[in-house]
Amino acid sequence: MAKLNGPLPRVVIVGGGFGGIAAAKVLAGLPVDVLLLDQRNHHVFQPLLYQVATAALSPADIASPIRHILSGQRNCRVVMARVEGVDLARRVIDVGGAEVEYDWLILAAGATHSYFGNRQWEQFAPGLKTLEDATEIRKRLLLAFESAEYEGSEEERRAALTFAVVGGGPTGVEMAGAIKEIAAHSIPADFRNIDTGTTRVVLFQGADRLLPGFAADLGERARRDLEKIGVEVRLNAKVTDIDARGVTVGDEFLPVRNVIWAAGVQANPLGRSLGVPLDRSGRIVVNPDLTVPGAPNVFVAGDLAAATSAKDGSLVPGVAQGAIQMGRYAGKVIAAELKAGGARPRRPFSYHDKGSMATIGKGRAVAEVGRYHIGGLVAWLLWALIHVAFLVNFRNKVSVLSNWAWQLLTSSRGARLITGVAVISVKLPLPDDRVHARAGDEARRSL
Amino acid sequence: MAKLNGPLPRVVIVGGGFGGIAAAKVLAGLPVDVLLLDQRNHHVFQPLLYQVATAALSPADIASPIRHILSGQRNCRVVMARVEGVDLARRVIDVGGAEVEYDWLILAAGATHSYFGNRQWEQFAPGLKTLEDATEIRKRLLLAFESAEYEGSEEERRAALTFAVVGGGPTGVEMAGAIKEIAAHSIPADFRNIDTGTTRVVLFQGADRLLPGFAADLGERARRDLEKIGVEVRLNAKVTDIDARGVTVGDEFLPVRNVIWAAGVQANPLGRSLGVPLDRSGRIVVNPDLTVPGAPNVFVAGDLAAATSAKDGSLVPGVAQGAIQMGRYAGKVIAAELKAGGARPRRPFSYHDKGSMATIGKGRAVAEVGRYHIGGLVAWLLWALIHVAFLVNFRNKVSVLSNWAWQLLTSSRGARLITGVAVISVKLPLPDDRVHARAGDEARRSL
Repeated sequence: MAKLNGPLPRVVIVGGGFGGIAAAKVLAGLPVDVLLLDQRNHHVFQPLLYQVATAALSPADIASPIRHILSGQRNCRVVMARVEGVDLARRVIDVGGAEVEYDWLILAAGATHSYFGNRQWEQFAPGLKTLEDATEIRKRLLLAFESAEYEGSEEERRAALTFAVVGGGPTGVEMAGAIKEIAAHSIPADFRNIDTGTTRVVLFQGADRLLPGFAADLGERARRDLEKIGVEVRLNAKVTDIDARGVTVGDEFLPVRNVIWAAGVQANPLGRSLGVPLDRSGRIVVNPDLTVPGAPNVFVAGDLAAATSAKDGSLVPGVAQGAIQMGRYAGKVIAAELKAGGARPRRPFSYHDKGSMATIGKGRAVAEVGRYHIGGLVAWLLWALIHVAFLVNFRNKVSVLSNWAWQLLTSSRGARLITGVAVISVKLPLPDDRVHARAGDEARRSL
Repeated sequence: MAKLNGPLPRVVIVGGGFGGIAAAKVLAGLPVDVLLLDQRNHHVFQPLLYQVATAALSPADIASPIRHILSGQRNCRVVMARVEGVDLARRVIDVGGAEVEYDWLILAAGATHSYFGNRQWEQFAPGLKTLEDATEIRKRLLLAFESAEYEGSEEERRAALTFAVVGGGPTGVEMAGAIKEIAAHSIPADFRNIDTGTTRVVLFQGADRLLPGFAADLGERARRDLEKIGVEVRLNAKVTDIDARGVTVGDEFLPVRNVIWAAGVQANPLGRSLGVPLDRSGRIVVNPDLTVPGAPNVFVAGDLAAATSAKDGSLVPGVAQGAIQMGRYAGKVIAAELKAGGARPRRPFSYHDKGSMATIGKGRAVAEVGRYHIGGLVAWLLWALIHVAFLVNFRNKVSVLSNWAWQLLTSSRGARLITGVAVISVKLPLPDDRVHARAGDEARRSL
């Protein structure tokens, strides 16, 4: 490796999510030039993203500027830029027409939604990966109640007050529970013409159980708890079409105006530029040491990697813990070889499952920690504790905690803002003025 | 007034700002059907909008859903809809193709920016009236530092690190002070290639003093305090052009990438549909009882009204207190005539100036309360106290207070998110790699 740029070797990290940040932190204080690139200026604490989408938290509560997170680390520079591709042979990455050399590379660019080849569903069924996704879903959710309030036809009102969530993993379960909770507890007093408590939330899951990543009894517990709070859970229900009118599952058609997509993920397309084998979801199939085949200086961490754990040969799951452990592993390998002054034998990556959890509603969750399977309030307290503990900084922690406390005490949700362009077609007359409407004058009714 | 819709007369309120909400609250519990229309679902506490624009607070901290504010008031319905026009003769308002009848009408639709006939300046110099404006300004502000960090040319970097604020009223003063504070105290440690402390903030004011609505000594105090923290104040400086390269003031051209418009306001165009005299800013010139000439049942409150106070014959200023007092006055007149069962002699509207204040930076403000003129920390504490006290709900108060406490302790600002689409053209090489760049290969440089 020729060092053109002075004495320090360079580690380029692509992506400021859990994997990228973890890798950068391991390299703190070492004689290496770390360059972290991300197209956004902020790291997002993804496990709480659904709380932004459901108006419980503000975007800033779960995000932090990447350069602020790493500001104390003098050997690390953060660049806000989009990486277009990687040239393994020449050891450069392509950044919008310019090239950046690397000695080591850590690819942690993550994943986005996949509509399984039905890209046209996206406009009707937004997914939840970024803060912009979350505020878009929040807008649609709040607008649904607004439009139902003015809706003249009973049929249309029913469709506006029906929500479909597609996908029964943690995001789907959490969104379904939170939407039902908003409708039943947070907002009923705000409306005059509709009873938001009658809102239908239908959760469609293609498999025969919820939460496939959890033990079977917890999936069953989640289903029971969701049904207890009024969510309709449909197992073995593969969605075959989504359009402006509703959702189709085989022969069944559900008229619904609001669909949330929580079903599939697709790795960042950056992987395609490498010319190495990808799995069905576009993830890079990595070596046991998380490197790209044929490139021992290029690591992949997080949702962009199809990695196998040396512990039990299982696939490393696409969760925050997986990304953090992979990022840290890559950083440690680099640190060790820097210290040794050259290549060393590498122990394969092992994933340590610290547990999984998903919330279902106020004071209800499921958690799997080792051989313990926990449900209800205890699981929820554990969930809250762990999620606050892992938030990036103290300010986020304080803000999230005080928002939650407020919500627990009042059932109110603070961030109920419809921002951006919002167009509602007001169907006048309002329902309670129908007496007047019946008098005739269909074209231009008076209220 | 024929009552077509059952027994209750109807009051329609257009706008959920300070004026509209105040009017609605006065009508609580009265035998009247109140309909409040706003094109947004939320009320914004405008005096703190500049803090969202400068990343100190989140949008949800200073906003509340209008229907939530009025949820306890059973005689009031809130409709999210845009009002297109008013037909005074037929007593109806036009809501996107439908018509809504009124017995009484309160117009409180507010104002937006005015570029004094130079609409083309808007793209380079956004104004600050809505939450979307605030997050757009926040984005530009944060992107300016990001792009300066990567900028290869010293000249370009200087322009990226120069901010021009146009307008020396409270918004201009507060924005200028806050931008300087961010640059000098909140973010220096986050950057490697630039010293954000060298950021220039230039405040252009067309008049010969700052804060024309305040006493002369406070305008002078604001100027001194701004200069103390490093803001360049240019009095008698009328901006004659703004484009992508910078700001022109007469013969002088300042290369600047970031301009914030805080100079002029223009009333909501709704006033034009009335066919009554408007003032130069498009405001409706109202009678002493705030009604539209020739329409004793139509009131105007807030920034849409050009109103004169009976107390001293002065124009009522376009501030929150003015809107609140006007809205409350209109509500009380209606309440009194409802009680009396018909028209009554009306006492003309009198504006009670409770004082004015503007912040300059951390722990610095100016305040004018009756004959007391206060500056520095005391004024700032007073400002903080009053603004928190007037925030809409308890949750907003807690959130704003804790954000401020955090900021005072750490100089950090929590909401430093660049959201929405952001494109930075990264100029490689990074400044500290220039050694390598000089080697040639101008077309496709390596870092």
